[in-house]
Amino acid sequence: MGQPLVHTLRVRYGECDLQGIVFNAHYLSYFDTSITELWRAACGSYQAMLDRGVDIVLAEARLRFRAPARFDDELTLAIGVTHIGTTSVLTHHTASSSAGELVAEGELRHVLVDRATVVKTPLPDWLRDGLEPWRVAGPTTSGRSTAPAQD
Amino acid sequence: MGQPLVHTLRVRYGECDLQGIVFNAHYLSYFDTSITELWRAACGSYQAMLDRGVDIVLAEARLRFRAPARFDDELTLAIGVTHIGTTSVLTHHTASSSAGELVAEGELRHVLVDRATVVKTPLPDWLRDGLEPWRVAGPTTSGRSTAPAQD
Amino acid sequence: MGQPLVHTLRVRYGECDLQGIVFNAHYLSYFDTSITELWRAACGSYQAMLDRGVDIVLAEARLRFRAPARFDDELTLAIGVTHIGTTSVLTHHTASSSAGELVAEGELRHVLVDRATVVKTPLPDWLRDGLEPWRVAGPTTSGRSTAPAQD
Amino acid sequence: MGQPLVHTLRVRYGECDLQGIVFNAHYLSYFDTSITELWRAACGSYQAMLDRGVDIVLAEARLRFRAPARFDDELTLAIGVTHIGTTSVLTHHTASSSAGELVAEGELRHVLVDRATVVKTPLPDWLRDGLEPWRVAGPTTSGRSTAPAQD
Repeated sequence: MGQPLVHTLRVRYGECDLQGIVFNAHYLSYFDTSITELWRAACGSYQAMLDRGVDIVLAEARLRFRAPARFDDELTLAIGVTHIGTTSVLTHHTASSSAGELVAEGELRHVLVDRATVVKTPLPDWLRDGLEPWRVAGPTTSGRSTAPAQD
Repeated sequence: MGQPLVHTLRVRYGECDLQGIVFNAHYLSYFDTSITELWRAACGSYQAMLDRGVDIVLAEARLRFRAPARFDDELTLAIGVTHIGTTSVLTHHTASSSAGELVAEGELRHVLVDRATVVKTPLPDWLRDGLEPWRVAGPTTSGRSTAPAQD
Repeated sequence: MGQPLVHTLRVRYGECDLQGIVFNAHYLSYFDTSITELWRAACGSYQAMLDRGVDIVLAEARLRFRAPARFDDELTLAIGVTHIGTTSVLTHHTASSSAGELVAEGELRHVLVDRATVVKTPLPDWLRDGLEPWRVAGPTTSGRSTAPAQD
Repeated sequence: MGQPLVHTLRVRYGECDLQGIVFNAHYLSYFDTSITELWRAACGSYQAMLDRGVDIVLAEARLRFRAPARFDDELTLAIGVTHIGTTSVLTHHTASSSAGELVAEGELRHVLVDRATVVKTPLPDWLRDGLEPWRVAGPTTSGRSTAPAQD
């Protein structure tokens, strides 16, 4: 087992809505910056992967919003690889406040594709090896509930 | 049972990324426009709900990306209410191309809060009644799989 | 002289900020939807222009914010072509509320480029002819003041 | 005379468009992060200004796009105060690549308003004094040309 990859990001003014908190769609964008950092750590850069003829597309996302983040907050973003399949990579994401409070978490499933044809393609070994240091255990069963929990 | 509420939306240039397709985070923003339309249909407008002292916050989201949408595509967005709990509302969303192809789908769970205190509050009857015409059956069991599906 | 091309656009929730009004950067995005509509009117679609081997890039923008727009407002966006140069197109933009109040206005200068090389290229006649119906007089002198006006 | 305030920002994947470059509207958002940093340097934080009962609104913006920025580029953003009026503040902005190339520049004119009434109000001395270290000479006359330059 490895450990999550961590970076920080400051909430921009235009990312906060009428409720005074980060608008929900921006969390997908924040988690995407974690994917960029993971690719940098795993194989030099996202561009380096493209240069080797493969790309990734997002197939599925699951997000849980735990506490509001506000303008100018510095969020800590952590990403861990929870599963490496034949053609897909599952990542677990958290966004936490500088006080350590969990703000949001999510799971993303990306699929590797041939860059030219955009057809699913198996993960090459150099990518598998590069992701290995960031392998973590998946979220607990309680967090993997079926449909979005009902009150 | 009622029927989904439908509106259309045209993909903007700046919403498409290097892959030539809509960047994933924008789907949460698109589905949010469906929420706005649902509130318009259910109680006059989102603002009308705020004026009566309640607001909604997104607690959980689940998104599946089925086919790419591209710049200038006109997407058909459909929203149906799949569950009304004591304090929460579950909605099912689809985005389809003008050719009828399913582009993306999702489930969102919103929680009703007191506008002033932002504390969970039960759905008032006027909101329950307003949402009733847009009640639909939930997604099939196969669509409610536990964690994001693995290859 | 022709007339401005007009379309409407509804302000999204996530486009409004802590001040309860549309965040300024979104106006550039709104005006870009007017460019898309202009291209549709002038030569079939933006894609049709790309298919003929040319593209446009924004070189310069000038924006004046006159009155706030708010969530769920339906804005009327008007675009007129104020100048067609050898390689550039100047457009004047307004965003108005449904009550007819001027919300924002701007001037954009786009440059035509070869799609493959991204090098400046003269506007072909088919594009000049297509833009002609949307030619309008430029903004008044008072609106063309030098630096942003000082109080 | 003081000096510009500088910070860095990494271009996100979703901020790049079909042309492979940063979509123009994001530069207004980038320059807004510079405003946030200026307020932090001038009076502790943007929030500290709000707490003292005043806010700022953008009245006018002028942007010139010099060279493309791309995904994952680290941009250096510089902001300098070029004019402090009775109720307004003029700032000059640049975005440069890590190689030092000028990517985009702009001038923004903000107006100070009473936070409660949103009516124009004179800049208090504490704000004037706070901005003083970041005073720079305005852009050269050639950069202050009237309408967007024509080819």
